[in-house]
Amino acid sequence: MNALPEIKKMETAHKTTIDFGRGTIGDGSFAVIAGPCAVESREQMFMTAKVVRDLGSVFMRGGTFKPRTMPYSFQGLGVDGLYILDETRKQYDVVVTTEVMSTEMVEVVAKHVDILQIGSRNMQNFDLLKKVGRTSTPVILKRGLSSTIEEWLAAAEYIMCEGNKKVILCERGIRTFEKYTRNTLDLSAVLAVKQISHLPVIVDPSHGTGRKDMILPMARAAMAIGADGIMIEVHPRPEEALSDGEQSINFDHFTQLMQEVERLKKVFHYC
Amino acid sequence: MNALPEIKKMETAHKTTIDFGRGTIGDGSFAVIAGPCAVESREQMFMTAKVVRDLGSVFMRGGTFKPRTMPYSFQGLGVDGLYILDETRKQYDVVVTTEVMSTEMVEVVAKHVDILQIGSRNMQNFDLLKKVGRTSTPVILKRGLSSTIEEWLAAAEYIMCEGNKKVILCERGIRTFEKYTRNTLDLSAVLAVKQISHLPVIVDPSHGTGRKDMILPMARAAMAIGADGIMIEVHPRPEEALSDGEQSINFDHFTQLMQEVERLKKVFHYC
Amino acid sequence: MNALPEIKKMETAHKTTIDFGRGTIGDGSFAVIAGPCAVESREQMFMTAKVVRDLGSVFMRGGTFKPRTMPYSFQGLGVDGLYILDETRKQYDVVVTTEVMSTEMVEVVAKHVDILQIGSRNMQNFDLLKKVGRTSTPVILKRGLSSTIEEWLAAAEYIMCEGNKKVILCERGIRTFEKYTRNTLDLSAVLAVKQISHLPVIVDPSHGTGRKDMILPMARAAMAIGADGIMIEVHPRPEEALSDGEQSINFDHFTQLMQEVERLKKVFHYC
Amino acid sequence: MNALPEIKKMETAHKTTIDFGRGTIGDGSFAVIAGPCAVESREQMFMTAKVVRDLGSVFMRGGTFKPRTMPYSFQGLGVDGLYILDETRKQYDVVVTTEVMSTEMVEVVAKHVDILQIGSRNMQNFDLLKKVGRTSTPVILKRGLSSTIEEWLAAAEYIMCEGNKKVILCERGIRTFEKYTRNTLDLSAVLAVKQISHLPVIVDPSHGTGRKDMILPMARAAMAIGADGIMIEVHPRPEEALSDGEQSINFDHFTQLMQEVERLKKVFHYC
Repeated sequence: MNALPEIKKMETAHKTTIDFGRGTIGDGSFAVIAGPCAVESREQMFMTAKVVRDLGSVFMRGGTFKPRTMPYSFQGLGVDGLYILDETRKQYDVVVTTEVMSTEMVEVVAKHVDILQIGSRNMQNFDLLKKVGRTSTPVILKRGLSSTIEEWLAAAEYIMCEGNKKVILCERGIRTFEKYTRNTLDLSAVLAVKQISHLPVIVDPSHGTGRKDMILPMARAAMAIGADGIMIEVHPRPEEALSDGEQSINFDHFTQLMQEVERLKKVFHYC
Repeated sequence: MNALPEIKKMETAHKTTIDFGRGTIGDGSFAVIAGPCAVESREQMFMTAKVVRDLGSVFMRGGTFKPRTMPYSFQGLGVDGLYILDETRKQYDVVVTTEVMSTEMVEVVAKHVDILQIGSRNMQNFDLLKKVGRTSTPVILKRGLSSTIEEWLAAAEYIMCEGNKKVILCERGIRTFEKYTRNTLDLSAVLAVKQISHLPVIVDPSHGTGRKDMILPMARAAMAIGADGIMIEVHPRPEEALSDGEQSINFDHFTQLMQEVERLKKVFHYC
Repeated sequence: MNALPEIKKMETAHKTTIDFGRGTIGDGSFAVIAGPCAVESREQMFMTAKVVRDLGSVFMRGGTFKPRTMPYSFQGLGVDGLYILDETRKQYDVVVTTEVMSTEMVEVVAKHVDILQIGSRNMQNFDLLKKVGRTSTPVILKRGLSSTIEEWLAAAEYIMCEGNKKVILCERGIRTFEKYTRNTLDLSAVLAVKQISHLPVIVDPSHGTGRKDMILPMARAAMAIGADGIMIEVHPRPEEALSDGEQSINFDHFTQLMQEVERLKKVFHYC
Repeated sequence: MNALPEIKKMETAHKTTIDFGRGTIGDGSFAVIAGPCAVESREQMFMTAKVVRDLGSVFMRGGTFKPRTMPYSFQGLGVDGLYILDETRKQYDVVVTTEVMSTEMVEVVAKHVDILQIGSRNMQNFDLLKKVGRTSTPVILKRGLSSTIEEWLAAAEYIMCEGNKKVILCERGIRTFEKYTRNTLDLSAVLAVKQISHLPVIVDPSHGTGRKDMILPMARAAMAIGADGIMIEVHPRPEEALSDGEQSINFDHFTQLMQEVERLKKVFHYC
């Protein structure tokens, strides 16, 4: 990794810690970023935000620009969804993140949310990486579907060498021959990037497995290996979700998950 | 593929044929698109163009916006390279193609070249697909490193449903466990997309294998299975190339390749 | 999985539990099967057995027929190793397992050890599966390097339909494009086979990652998802091991691991 | 490949040529090994043999010990099939090959057929490799589903270092994420093993693609890259085949294929 000076610096540096006021990522705590795959309405987001806060988390996710394989699938609410995300964070004092898919939208998205998200399909969209690297907004960088760990860290370097050091890596499953799960969640990659860099790393068991019944055990496993958090899909009514319903959990399951996370924080020495 | 109406229409339609005046792709001919990985200088492009024309081809490639894994690798000449490409096509009457990596650049790139190229890493950069779909410039759509055939055709649909039907698919190898070759060239994918769609399909044996010694036999194989052409990296001095020298052939090898292509055209009933 | 009646029966049946007198697998306990990659000497095995017993485990591994990629690599002690395994289990009252690679050896191996092991490379060596299916000795069936979950369960069915129902599945990593780790440990496969079958499932983080520094965290993760145990490589002096030294831990690290396992048993409700 | 002395010797040696009297493999000719996936009856084999001979080939395949994923699928005729193969070769003067799955059967199989075949699932069944290495019968060694080229050659070395140098490699597709085809036929592997070794290499487009409509174009491609032959599934009535009917061609298609092979022999300088 000699070719990656920003990553290399970390060998001697302190862990990267990102403080949002209401919550911090990378300081030894375990962040749970929860919310629907897609922002569908103000009601949906407000309902979810209330649950998230009541259960003790402050981080929310919700896509409004959706990268869909098929052009005729629901593509997200677009800018309208940004307004909903902005209202949600103000009303409920949560930290919100959403995916940004194009350079033109970086500035406007950064105005309405707290964390920019780069999706798997854009992990090597280098113009987009550079553009978010020129903002001061924290960035969640998802691993590409078939990206090596080295390529993933090189993508982080693209962002950091432009000035923005607030990068959070997110393992979300890689593409393999196995089709029982949507992807194969590669937990060893979390260990690897923690060995090489000091960037916070979170895990997305929703996309990583594509199966709601695997989210809770994989959340436990993420804590067991020392991840800095998880990102999960929670929906008031998963069966009516406009996308990814089969990998979203409802509020009851989310409550169980948060109780389990709470219980395991002490076990795995999270602060 | 019922979810892809533009692709579906093709079942009954004629083959998509793209006429550039100086040459045509998809009409039963075998196109050889040759040139350096990266545009490095006017001299380099002019020298190559002369050889391309002398050997009977009219198609040239040359990257000027280079998607490089590492941020500190040579990133291409940028807009300066576009001018060189434009001069080259005017001076030598060749059809040129170059990769476009961001939505902001689509218009300016389309002004200076004849074919826009979407690289593997951007195959699911949907904003970029839509943007090139709103131009009338032909597009070479490379298959993503780990994209299924269905996802690849869905990406083509993204372009076509915006109005631009001039899509040329390009198989360039997929990522597998095998590391002897840079990627695994999937020739069966060419057969598959020809069964499902009527879009022209070309093969890139340079990226597909990453080895100059495999380019000629794989070019033969591409003709053997009925591909509409190949895209190969040719450089005046591969050992001095600023990128991908190990998978570029020199003019001598290119001459041999063109002689072999010429010989096999009749064998495989190309026009 | 309708094609697999033995597996299918399990939907309504009790969990498969395998009792060895000195220890049980599949009864809600967490088994740690520890020992060297290869049996090298009586001293090595006795030293390790003592540590295993002192730390509270009763299960030991040690290969004596080694499936090596290269024909000139150390191939194991063969039958001599079997005698050492047998002495070890008698002397230290441990349950031992070793790989059996050929049908001719099944009987003699079954005489000297408590659990037969089918390695990844032989997961679809159907004659071998049938042969061990005709014994009454418990069998650890490792998942093939690129076997789907369905193929893995079908291999278990091959054993069970011959009469031997004492099958323990072992996830040991699958082959992917990622090369930082030797394989990609697929923990979701453990969840999958537990959903479909009632067979005990263990995890091999030594082969699964190929890195000694990942064994402890992956052992934790195995407990977090409810695996029935782990199989790990422990060696008195890993740096002198005749095979797989880089993925073997020494006695100090093994002690730490066993303490951690002990601590987490209550956390994850193991008996 | 320094670890493989038998392979390494080939750098300076002549190409391995295997002469069967009625036909030769590896001498610059293009062998077509045709026949059903499974031997089903004498009539089936005789009918096919007649067609094979009439169309100018002398090589036949037919499985009688079938490695099937599911234990309840048709497992082949076993020893009865061996007798049919033997009768077929005597009656029609053809060279026959069949898979041998276990060490115990090596001798008897070698008595009834001309070429032993090691299937993909057994490529690293080292005891079996050693056993066939101690015979003098030529061996077709299929590449494992997820075996690297280096592992494949190491498996060949296992056979050769026991004394049997008559090894024919067979590329039959590797397992990837793509599911449109049964496997991904890796033609670059053929080029690779020809660069490293002097062993003959053939291609199996039936298993490599799993689609009868891709067999003819892939056979052409195999010739285009210089393979020493192909192995294909031909059945009198593919729709009634007891296994792999969807990847078997009927006599009409086989006739077309043989005419095409004949035509291309001159084109690609086969003798």
